[in-house]
Amino acid sequence: MKTAAFLGLGAMGVPMAAALARRAATTGGRVLVWNRHAEKAQAHAAGYGTQAATLEEVGGAQLILTCLPTSADVDEVIGQLEAHINPSTFWVDCTSGHPDAAQLQRARLLKRGVKFLDAPVSGGVSGAEASTLTVMLGGPADEVRAVRGELAFAGKAVHVGDTGAGFAVKAVNNALLAVNLWAAGEGLAALGKGGVDLSAALDVINASSGRSNATENLIPSRVLTRAFPPTFGLGLLAKDADIALDVVRAVGSSAPVLAQVAALTRAASQLVGPHEDHTALLKLVEQMNAQEIR
Amino acid sequence: MKTAAFLGLGAMGVPMAAALARRAATTGGRVLVWNRHAEKAQAHAAGYGTQAATLEEVGGAQLILTCLPTSADVDEVIGQLEAHINPSTFWVDCTSGHPDAAQLQRARLLKRGVKFLDAPVSGGVSGAEASTLTVMLGGPADEVRAVRGELAFAGKAVHVGDTGAGFAVKAVNNALLAVNLWAAGEGLAALGKGGVDLSAALDVINASSGRSNATENLIPSRVLTRAFPPTFGLGLLAKDADIALDVVRAVGSSAPVLAQVAALTRAASQLVGPHEDHTALLKLVEQMNAQEIR
Amino acid sequence: MKTAAFLGLGAMGVPMAAALARRAATTGGRVLVWNRHAEKAQAHAAGYGTQAATLEEVGGAQLILTCLPTSADVDEVIGQLEAHINPSTFWVDCTSGHPDAAQLQRARLLKRGVKFLDAPVSGGVSGAEASTLTVMLGGPADEVRAVRGELAFAGKAVHVGDTGAGFAVKAVNNALLAVNLWAAGEGLAALGKGGVDLSAALDVINASSGRSNATENLIPSRVLTRAFPPTFGLGLLAKDADIALDVVRAVGSSAPVLAQVAALTRAASQLVGPHEDHTALLKLVEQMNAQEIR
Amino acid sequence: MKTAAFLGLGAMGVPMAAALARRAATTGGRVLVWNRHAEKAQAHAAGYGTQAATLEEVGGAQLILTCLPTSADVDEVIGQLEAHINPSTFWVDCTSGHPDAAQLQRARLLKRGVKFLDAPVSGGVSGAEASTLTVMLGGPADEVRAVRGELAFAGKAVHVGDTGAGFAVKAVNNALLAVNLWAAGEGLAALGKGGVDLSAALDVINASSGRSNATENLIPSRVLTRAFPPTFGLGLLAKDADIALDVVRAVGSSAPVLAQVAALTRAASQLVGPHEDHTALLKLVEQMNAQEIR
Repeated sequence: MKTAAFLGLGAMGVPMAAALARRAATTGGRVLVWNRHAEKAQAHAAGYGTQAATLEEVGGAQLILTCLPTSADVDEVIGQLEAHINPSTFWVDCTSGHPDAAQLQRARLLKRGVKFLDAPVSGGVSGAEASTLTVMLGGPADEVRAVRGELAFAGKAVHVGDTGAGFAVKAVNNALLAVNLWAAGEGLAALGKGGVDLSAALDVINASSGRSNATENLIPSRVLTRAFPPTFGLGLLAKDADIALDVVRAVGSSAPVLAQVAALTRAASQLVGPHEDHTALLKLVEQMNAQEIR
Repeated sequence: MKTAAFLGLGAMGVPMAAALARRAATTGGRVLVWNRHAEKAQAHAAGYGTQAATLEEVGGAQLILTCLPTSADVDEVIGQLEAHINPSTFWVDCTSGHPDAAQLQRARLLKRGVKFLDAPVSGGVSGAEASTLTVMLGGPADEVRAVRGELAFAGKAVHVGDTGAGFAVKAVNNALLAVNLWAAGEGLAALGKGGVDLSAALDVINASSGRSNATENLIPSRVLTRAFPPTFGLGLLAKDADIALDVVRAVGSSAPVLAQVAALTRAASQLVGPHEDHTALLKLVEQMNAQEIR
Repeated sequence: MKTAAFLGLGAMGVPMAAALARRAATTGGRVLVWNRHAEKAQAHAAGYGTQAATLEEVGGAQLILTCLPTSADVDEVIGQLEAHINPSTFWVDCTSGHPDAAQLQRARLLKRGVKFLDAPVSGGVSGAEASTLTVMLGGPADEVRAVRGELAFAGKAVHVGDTGAGFAVKAVNNALLAVNLWAAGEGLAALGKGGVDLSAALDVINASSGRSNATENLIPSRVLTRAFPPTFGLGLLAKDADIALDVVRAVGSSAPVLAQVAALTRAASQLVGPHEDHTALLKLVEQMNAQEIR
Repeated sequence: MKTAAFLGLGAMGVPMAAALARRAATTGGRVLVWNRHAEKAQAHAAGYGTQAATLEEVGGAQLILTCLPTSADVDEVIGQLEAHINPSTFWVDCTSGHPDAAQLQRARLLKRGVKFLDAPVSGGVSGAEASTLTVMLGGPADEVRAVRGELAFAGKAVHVGDTGAGFAVKAVNNALLAVNLWAAGEGLAALGKGGVDLSAALDVINASSGRSNATENLIPSRVLTRAFPPTFGLGLLAKDADIALDVVRAVGSSAPVLAQVAALTRAASQLVGPHEDHTALLKLVEQMNAQEIR
């Protein structure tokens, strides 16, 4: 598409918009950027060849992408843009949003002819920089086909179901991340208290059936090192685990383990702090056991 | 070592003893095999070049390896062998045993000069056949060094701590397997009930932060297919999850999620059957949600 | 107040409206009754001295009381009544409703001058028949004062907070009921499996610190007897436990035990059936343990 | 019986031994007392008309009662007394002990003709002072009959099953106490955070189906008041909740909620301190929610 607009230049948005700009440079398109703080848009334009734009200008794009903290933030931007937006625009929301919000947002925008797709991403800042993000698309198949090729930041983009399904899968993914991380923390805290070498323990677990992304990647580099580098925040992980529970609830399902871990993640966010890295979830495990995981 | 003896020719033991025999053929050693049912030993000898032996003959080996269902089975074999066993023998127990049993077994055998090491394995039948098992060794460092090179079935053999530490790490690994599997089942049951395509959902989760061995390997090939091929049994998984809780308890630690999942695994073993494949754990999730994961 | 109208003649509503009628007989007031199935209203009028009424007639009452399965049912009735209702009417909703619904219902009715109060009750059919129900009132203090004396079915009516607080306290009460019941079931199943006499065990527990309404009243009369008489339904208990989680979530709180038990209650409703008595919750405990509690 | 000996003069033991002495004064018997710290025995003798005794003298009693922190303490005293004790003595252990220990202790003492019964008590210091304790007796029916009348401190003494059953029921009772207390704490923390008056909430809950000893007695007087008077310790509650899990495990049962709460109680003991009153369990709930329950 000739003009794409990217709204939300956070840690993820900056490299995602940059990837769009690199692609546009080869196809003759252009990428507008907008951010609540205009200076971030100007800095992005200067650094990556995008164009800082007003919301009126954004409204003229064929493709609008959003990547914001929560669905509530997207609602606010929709409210500001609604009056300016062209019919037949595609709105691709990469926020880790709420499936219920997706339903409402799609219905609201469809009244103006705008097609809303939920398209949350996974892969972190490094995945965004390498253009290898995984995108989970929810919406009608033909609309998904229309935009999938435009997502220059994606290494993989999968159509998982109707409107809201992308957000639902993302929330479940993050809930599993929380569970796998927490459970590994419990096991390692006990092993460590018993004098087992945790690097050796992780070495064998990672060659065994209990391994997960948490044991293979997160805990060795972020927890054992005590670095807990602040990337994806603990408060957002707690929010996503709660959204997963809403997904469970919406279909009358029962998920006692996701429910327990969502509650413990909320407690950790409360006790340890929502802006800590999500791996700081294990600091609550450590407090409960008077034992550092190192 | 010149003579090794392998006791316990179950699904794992057969290829493990075969790997020892292949190695011995190149080093001039020999491998004795023993099984409660002697015909299994004779069949192994015929098929893999080992020698079926009596317990008296086993007692003369420099290295004794056991791979039995539980530590109680090992206790029984120790009782039968004790009188025949040479001092300075190494006893390497590859059972998924109990750390408390390891302490008692080591102390008991040390009275006769025999060195007991706990050395549970991970990797399943296919790992045993490919000689790529992961071995978790517990015991004194010099004794671990003395036997590590003999474990021809191992792709990786790691010294994780003192006597019992091998069993402890194995139990924690299997408890994490149970948690990761159960939680993924909860999430997928809800997504499936909501109309999401589960293959697509697993495709993106496996390219995302929530992935685990359960989502990458077990669920696609065993659950979505409805095959649940009976390899590692659900009753043994429940036993291992309970051992992990004993590891937690022994150090006064707190593991609410491991505890919850151990209880649910015990319930699944009760309701679904202990001899079902361990992935049939998810049949309880399915019953609780009136929703198949497929 | 001169005219009260009672809507919803279920197991609870019948004796509650009857209590209002007995009081009205002494004060010169009258009680209108309405039910989706008009013949229930006629039968009530014949049996208890109330008057079967149309929704138009109901709209003229000074006090409208509702007692319906869920807040969604109340929404429907509001929609039907809205056009007919007098300003300055009090609407007292005795449904076990949702705090969020209460906010919306109050706001909606206030536009017509109608004062909505949430007023769920506890005590069961027998409490309703004896006019000893406990009422949990949410709303402005002066409005609560205005209606409290009218609630002839109440043994105790307490103002617990602003709009929605009544529903919130009721939901938490029912969640505690579910927790206390489930946990007692777990303990008794294990004791029974170990050969302990459960009547004796309950006898001492009920003279000890672990006692609850579940151990004192529900389990002896409904579970040990295998009667499970269908009064308050399991599906409604599951709904209330979920509402309690919404109460927790709305304030960003963490309740891992309420969350686990809500999920298990939902699973029991799924497996055992939503129309079974709420004490049939323990049939899932029994299945998980292959052990009857008797 | 002519001579009874009471060992263990803690907060419970002092009034229990005093009750025995008051009874003995009317029947012509005598009560020996012993404590690890002899001065406590002397003080008791001076205050309550008992006789401070050596272990040799204790060995001559017809009835020996113990009330110690754990079964391990009882093991130690058995070791010291064994050589001095008369055959045909009854040993009634009022410790909150472990069912497995009871089996071993009974077998050990039976070799000397001594009959061991497990007889834990409930009711707290005030129940001991009022001689209204509840006693849960485990052992052969004829032996229970022989001693039941001697337990002057009991308001109720119930034979619940074979050896160990008394300890099992006590452990389950205390586990239910922990569950009921914790769950109420979760609910109240959320209600309080939402602005509900907690005294009013407890008032209605205690007239409703969710009530328990925790909501009726413990929380109003110990938690809302912020008094947390140190009676029964949090560390002992954690120990008892763990024993209850052993009871569950011993019969292959599944108790996910007891398991979860036992873990949380252990964590609270770790974080808040084992010597705090058991109601300080709720201080962990408060920390997890950044909300005091008051």
